[in-house]
Amino acid sequence: MALIVQKYGGTSVGSLDRIRNVASRIKKLRDAGHQVVAVVSAMSGVTNKLIAMAEELNNDPSERELDVLLATGEQQSIALVSMALHELDVDAVSVTGRQAGIVTTGSHTRGKIDQINPDLMHKYLDEGNVVICAGFQGVREDGMIHTLGRGGSDLSAIAVAAALKADTCQILTDVDGVYTCDPRVVKDARKMPEVSYDEMLEMASSGTKVMQSRSVEFAKKYGVIFEVRSSLNDNPGTIVTEEHDNMESVVIRGVSIERSQARLTITGIPDEPGMSASILSCLAEAEINIDMIISNIAHDGLARHSVTMHSNDLGKAQAALKPVIAKLGDKAGFETEAGIAKLSCVGIGMRSHSGVAAKMFEALGEAGINIGIITTSEIKIAVTIDEEQIEEAARVVHAAFDLDKAPQA
Amino acid sequence: MALIVQKYGGTSVGSLDRIRNVASRIKKLRDAGHQVVAVVSAMSGVTNKLIAMAEELNNDPSERELDVLLATGEQQSIALVSMALHELDVDAVSVTGRQAGIVTTGSHTRGKIDQINPDLMHKYLDEGNVVICAGFQGVREDGMIHTLGRGGSDLSAIAVAAALKADTCQILTDVDGVYTCDPRVVKDARKMPEVSYDEMLEMASSGTKVMQSRSVEFAKKYGVIFEVRSSLNDNPGTIVTEEHDNMESVVIRGVSIERSQARLTITGIPDEPGMSASILSCLAEAEINIDMIISNIAHDGLARHSVTMHSNDLGKAQAALKPVIAKLGDKAGFETEAGIAKLSCVGIGMRSHSGVAAKMFEALGEAGINIGIITTSEIKIAVTIDEEQIEEAARVVHAAFDLDKAPQA
Repeated sequence: MALIVQKYGGTSVGSLDRIRNVASRIKKLRDAGHQVVAVVSAMSGVTNKLIAMAEELNNDPSERELDVLLATGEQQSIALVSMALHELDVDAVSVTGRQAGIVTTGSHTRGKIDQINPDLMHKYLDEGNVVICAGFQGVREDGMIHTLGRGGSDLSAIAVAAALKADTCQILTDVDGVYTCDPRVVKDARKMPEVSYDEMLEMASSGTKVMQSRSVEFAKKYGVIFEVRSSLNDNPGTIVTEEHDNMESVVIRGVSIERSQARLTITGIPDEPGMSASILSCLAEAEINIDMIISNIAHDGLARHSVTMHSNDLGKAQAALKPVIAKLGDKAGFETEAGIAKLSCVGIGMRSHSGVAAKMFEALGEAGINIGIITTSEIKIAVTIDEEQIEEAARVVHAAFDLDKAPQA
Repeated sequence: MALIVQKYGGTSVGSLDRIRNVASRIKKLRDAGHQVVAVVSAMSGVTNKLIAMAEELNNDPSERELDVLLATGEQQSIALVSMALHELDVDAVSVTGRQAGIVTTGSHTRGKIDQINPDLMHKYLDEGNVVICAGFQGVREDGMIHTLGRGGSDLSAIAVAAALKADTCQILTDVDGVYTCDPRVVKDARKMPEVSYDEMLEMASSGTKVMQSRSVEFAKKYGVIFEVRSSLNDNPGTIVTEEHDNMESVVIRGVSIERSQARLTITGIPDEPGMSASILSCLAEAEINIDMIISNIAHDGLARHSVTMHSNDLGKAQAALKPVIAKLGDKAGFETEAGIAKLSCVGIGMRSHSGVAAKMFEALGEAGINIGIITTSEIKIAVTIDEEQIEEAARVVHAAFDLDKAPQA
């Protein structure tokens, strides 16, 4: 008998039929003798509908009240999933974030999980119940309802698994697992049996949208091994775990792509301390997420700063930087480039294998694909290329590293 | 400066426009210097939609989980009303039943308010906020979410007014107040300026569906004077209060009608102790609400018991009574009559005025309307008549007691 924590996302509970499907999946685990805690999201569409109502009433709705409003979505799901289980004669009981003992800190709509007091969940489990726990929510020390922001239900599931010392944590979603590349782009992309926390983190920040980084970080911090798998079939998924020796034999674990990127380059910057900081803090204040950052000195002795961002943010970024540019002097100016995409190769094997970048650039070069900005981390190489060539680029890099073939242990 | 508790029902917050209307009504009170606590229901339709989903998943949904599900309706309303107030630059903060300190007892979906700890509401009021409180819900001692059943939001408002020692309690609804009779039936029905708790209670149980009896009982018990008025205009409504001397000068306060009634008469009952009890307990076990009860002895020395109920329950009642009839002996049997209605005259003045029943029956007789069953209480006379004649009956009785004219003090 194992204690299994499962997380079902919004599409997995997106209709009454889907809710019935979730109930029968849970029943199977019960019938096999396991204890189950299911963390569920709001039915897909519900949260967006509530936000639309809020924004129709108020241009800038109070975040405290948004939390009160949005927390109802998960509260509805937990009751409905419990009822569907009762219909299958499975004992089940719902718990809100508060009842699950999920104590949060931080500002409204962006809560962080501080601690979990799982006494009530343990009691319900000991009594033979499946526990259906509201994801995405908790309660602050001051008693206020609190939501956890994007990806919050994944975070809830991983934190609940840690607090309950669960044997297994499954993130059930509408994809089958984590792939070596997006299968819609690279037909022979392969589902990875396992991936390390660090690789998963690099992929999450490189366009592989299976999970938010912070849930993976939380899992890494508390050593929660979890599996990403489909809520619609019984195929094994991808296990996300601490790295071990076998993993290093694979040079590149996967290739991620991110479209709709733009580059903004500030030229003619006097090469003085503090210049980079003033540019970056100005973009941060304008709430623009910047991705890659590179800087170099041009032949005229003046510095060039390039950053990439989502192309939707390009106009906002230029507006925000105008006063900064004005202060930098006459020679300062902008260059912008939209219509680019980012290709990232991720793998912890990179640490012990040399020549990875060379092999990647060679493959792209042979295909006639030009590289723009390059950034690297210990386990990632990322490049920008023309967005029109991104699919071709993914295919040639995927092939160059033999990612279509199962790795040899 | 007064502390005003208002209750807005489901239709009053039934759309975003209606919510904006509620917000501007509250703003007017704030601008006039008052403190306001608004108790709100779920947007009309929301609760029914949630119940339909529950019943699609489960024929007999768990009442604990129904409470978890249904409480979300009010939680959404309080957040939305608060946001609409912020848009008008009014400081407002929402509280769930739990945050309002509403502690309940009793079984799920039928909670009773046990006590209210209004500290948090006082704090928010002292800080200059309007408090928007979720009606219909509280929390049990064991931490479970609890709803209060039909008419629960009225009960919440009256209990909150009592706990806060509010100066005024207003039940805002889609009618203008309590009328001497249904204005759709009697064109010259008049809105009563005031009515006593006991009269309001008798009317509530006689078909005047403005409020549930238990909210009025709660108000009477705690001496909460409240006003029933419209949420759509500023007309004064009807004040429900303790009776005072002036009230007695009015013989009949109002006429209530209730349609779709049926009579079930059990005949040939041996005149022995315990016979009535076994018949009534049998109907109670079948969860049939019976209204009027009369019993008499026929010329053959056998007793006849008649009860009235909603006509939808007639078949169920007959089925439930079959085994009892079988035990009563050969002479026992049924008589049933559907298609009847009930007419009630209510007024505390009845206590000190004689001849009220005579005057009522005379008016009906002159109009050629036959009377079936008659029951009386200290302040009510109720009769059954043919449903086809109920509107005519209401008009002649209303006229006979001069209810179209304002009473002389």
